[in-house]
Amino acid sequence: MNSTAAELDASVEAAHAAFEKARLAGPGTRATWLEAVAAGLENDAAALVDLAVTETHLAEPRLQGELKRTVFQLRLFADEIRRGEHFDATIDHDDAAWGMGPRPDLRRYNVPLGVVGVFGASNFPFAFSVMGGDSASALAAGCAVVHKAHDGHRELAVRTAETVTAALESAGAPSGLFSLVTGRPAAEALVDHPLVKAIGFTGSTAGGRALFDRAAARPEPIPFFGELGGINAVFVTGNAWAARREEILTGYAGSFTLGMGQFCTKPGVLFVPAGQTDEVRDNLRNALEDFAPAQLLSARLHEGFRQAVAGLRDTAGVRVLLDGDVAEAPAPTVLLTTSEAVRSDPGILRQEMFGPASLVVEYSDESELTALAGLLEGQLTTTLQAEAEDDVAELAGRLADISGRLLWNGWPTGVTVSYAQHHGGPYPATTSGTTSVGTAAIRRFLRPVAFQSFPQPRLPEPLQDANPWNVPQRVDGVWRRPSAQPEGRL
Amino acid sequence: MNSTAAELDASVEAAHAAFEKARLAGPGTRATWLEAVAAGLENDAAALVDLAVTETHLAEPRLQGELKRTVFQLRLFADEIRRGEHFDATIDHDDAAWGMGPRPDLRRYNVPLGVVGVFGASNFPFAFSVMGGDSASALAAGCAVVHKAHDGHRELAVRTAETVTAALESAGAPSGLFSLVTGRPAAEALVDHPLVKAIGFTGSTAGGRALFDRAAARPEPIPFFGELGGINAVFVTGNAWAARREEILTGYAGSFTLGMGQFCTKPGVLFVPAGQTDEVRDNLRNALEDFAPAQLLSARLHEGFRQAVAGLRDTAGVRVLLDGDVAEAPAPTVLLTTSEAVRSDPGILRQEMFGPASLVVEYSDESELTALAGLLEGQLTTTLQAEAEDDVAELAGRLADISGRLLWNGWPTGVTVSYAQHHGGPYPATTSGTTSVGTAAIRRFLRPVAFQSFPQPRLPEPLQDANPWNVPQRVDGVWRRPSAQPEGRL
Repeated sequence: MNSTAAELDASVEAAHAAFEKARLAGPGTRATWLEAVAAGLENDAAALVDLAVTETHLAEPRLQGELKRTVFQLRLFADEIRRGEHFDATIDHDDAAWGMGPRPDLRRYNVPLGVVGVFGASNFPFAFSVMGGDSASALAAGCAVVHKAHDGHRELAVRTAETVTAALESAGAPSGLFSLVTGRPAAEALVDHPLVKAIGFTGSTAGGRALFDRAAARPEPIPFFGELGGINAVFVTGNAWAARREEILTGYAGSFTLGMGQFCTKPGVLFVPAGQTDEVRDNLRNALEDFAPAQLLSARLHEGFRQAVAGLRDTAGVRVLLDGDVAEAPAPTVLLTTSEAVRSDPGILRQEMFGPASLVVEYSDESELTALAGLLEGQLTTTLQAEAEDDVAELAGRLADISGRLLWNGWPTGVTVSYAQHHGGPYPATTSGTTSVGTAAIRRFLRPVAFQSFPQPRLPEPLQDANPWNVPQRVDGVWRRPSAQPEGRL
Repeated sequence: MNSTAAELDASVEAAHAAFEKARLAGPGTRATWLEAVAAGLENDAAALVDLAVTETHLAEPRLQGELKRTVFQLRLFADEIRRGEHFDATIDHDDAAWGMGPRPDLRRYNVPLGVVGVFGASNFPFAFSVMGGDSASALAAGCAVVHKAHDGHRELAVRTAETVTAALESAGAPSGLFSLVTGRPAAEALVDHPLVKAIGFTGSTAGGRALFDRAAARPEPIPFFGELGGINAVFVTGNAWAARREEILTGYAGSFTLGMGQFCTKPGVLFVPAGQTDEVRDNLRNALEDFAPAQLLSARLHEGFRQAVAGLRDTAGVRVLLDGDVAEAPAPTVLLTTSEAVRSDPGILRQEMFGPASLVVEYSDESELTALAGLLEGQLTTTLQAEAEDDVAELAGRLADISGRLLWNGWPTGVTVSYAQHHGGPYPATTSGTTSVGTAAIRRFLRPVAFQSFPQPRLPEPLQDANPWNVPQRVDGVWRRPSAQPEGRL
């Protein structure tokens, strides 16, 4: 059953009321709410994973790992807001000698935006859904969350939301701080609602762009943090190919078929030197020999996969290297093309095949690689497979232009949650310059407010000279960090 | 003469080429470019100010102050990028014991976006125009700038651009790093150009929104950092009114007529207790007795001012308190209304009068103020005039919701350039959650990139363990700041 317009309204209104209460709590209190949710998810893990297996066809160990990641993320974010890094507290004392003329006392910190709408993703029923990265970072920031369940795992979403709501309530969080809505009408109304101040989204480019446009067209436009996927091209140099061809092809096969290829970081294109086509095919066939096909996430995704593979396979200049299939549980497909073909039709490099398929591009000369990289759209990741002696500075620079994360001799699947993580990239990888993974994701849901000449007791705690919450403060240009800084290891 | 389409294209292409060279320079080198521009502006100050007086009708001392501010800003930003704060360098070493599973070595820092389009403002021919806050912060970030001159001071823009270009060249910056275009067709083409990656804008709500929509509708949407102005309401409590009525009215009169009321931070609304209308009028008349009217910035602005004042004056419930005029050099106008009237027509609080006019709102009961604040749209600033014993926590909370800077017993005109400054606010004050004044403005023109498992020598300098540029680094969750941190005083 889809949420009605009245239900959506009630959820947003309740979330707004809860936000107004929640932001009076300090980060220490809010951290305990996140930790209560983490504990709740751990307690209910067995039942939740069972439900997820049924609804998504993903393997149980993968889902257990994903739940572990989700729980860890909540605890990492709790730790992060206890440190107070997210406040970015900045204090300029009044200064009669300031270079442009006398300066008043001025202090700035970050406050939460308000109610955030979060859209669940099909391919991560835990880590990018009900209490995934967007919800966790919005709650950590001090926002309230109205979550739009993904239709692909609606029962799981409802059950997870019950766990979350019960945990928040038991921890003393205000009622309504988190709620769940379902169905497309509610999704659109969520983006339109005047009390909703930001959107977090993970999904397709078409769907994400439509909602981005909707958010931008509001009377009051709101930020739309959309993660729309990509191709995640991998570039193999001649030296790396000579030294580690088998290892590279094995790693590639493992990465593009991981989770049935249903990751936004799946390597969708591999650039290799021309001339060993048979060997590439044989190596890939060997590497995939024991691959156990499984059903894709949903019938809708399966149909999209079928169409994408057929479309690319039938493009001029593309042929089949490894003939998989598009059965209900599809065997991996590898297509093959040349650098000449993609130069004449760069669209070949822009077709995401969401599932266990990828494209090998043979190049004639390593000096082509920088130009080939220039044909790619914005990416979440790009990867270099290279040797110590390779001169790839120019190529790496080009890859930094078009992607959010560059890997050296690794594979892009597997996105750790940490301080330095950046999961985002130039459009169409994402619709903003932010990350949806890692502690920096919290910053998306904050905005700065400055206080001029306020008396000390009327200042928010992070801006008081006495610094009662012991947060980092930049004072007259110089950062002062608490001496009792936690060790930072979870 | 307006720039042709070919000239705009050539400017953007040259800017992009210059950007590709400029980003290879370290922040120390780029800082010397900013300092060269500052020195160039100082050298040419006399001629530039003379030209500005002619084109804008602003007073010479005001323009000298504005140029001083502009020069100071360039030096402050040079100092800021030398410190390396803007990199936000974050290093997570690999960690087999990381809570969600083994973590690879992952490092993130900020890189410049590319070519930035900057629109000059009518009312700040130096500080928000050719080499104003947007241009200075974009160059500091490592971007190139194509500046669209404001038609109101086009000769000055051309002359200032010559100074800037010569200074950059003499300092060794790549040719094309800064250029100037003119006219509306070039303005629109600038927002549309695929090589332009962000826009900085200061101007009207209507003009800004149209360009925001244009930027969002591009095949690749780009961030539009627009500062669109506002009302800057001031709230006077009963106690403050009793204690400092005369002082408050004198301060108000001075602030709303400063620079002929042509500031985006002009106090456009003053909430005072009802019952002393005659005294308010007499005090304001006294305070404005020696006011010397001057011409407004342009005939177009003058016409807009005339219409805005007439529109508000003719609104039901609004009457004239102090009868100014809309002559070529207009005398100040103060309109008067009541809290009842604005409750029934909140539009009264949403009409900016860009010029020397303001609105006094009489309220019956102090308990109304929070609700009245709730009728305001997003603001750059709001101000409290209150006494130590006043309980205004709820009102202050509401004001923080709707504004970017809160003042205590001050006046919003005068926006210092410093570390803690925040010049921005909820829409329609700005189109983003960022600031266009202060060192934080630099962050707008950067985006993060992460490097996974990169060998040390291939990492950008700010991410190397050896930290050759001596920048702040967050290492495994804990910030390490250079011991030789500069003192931070300019």
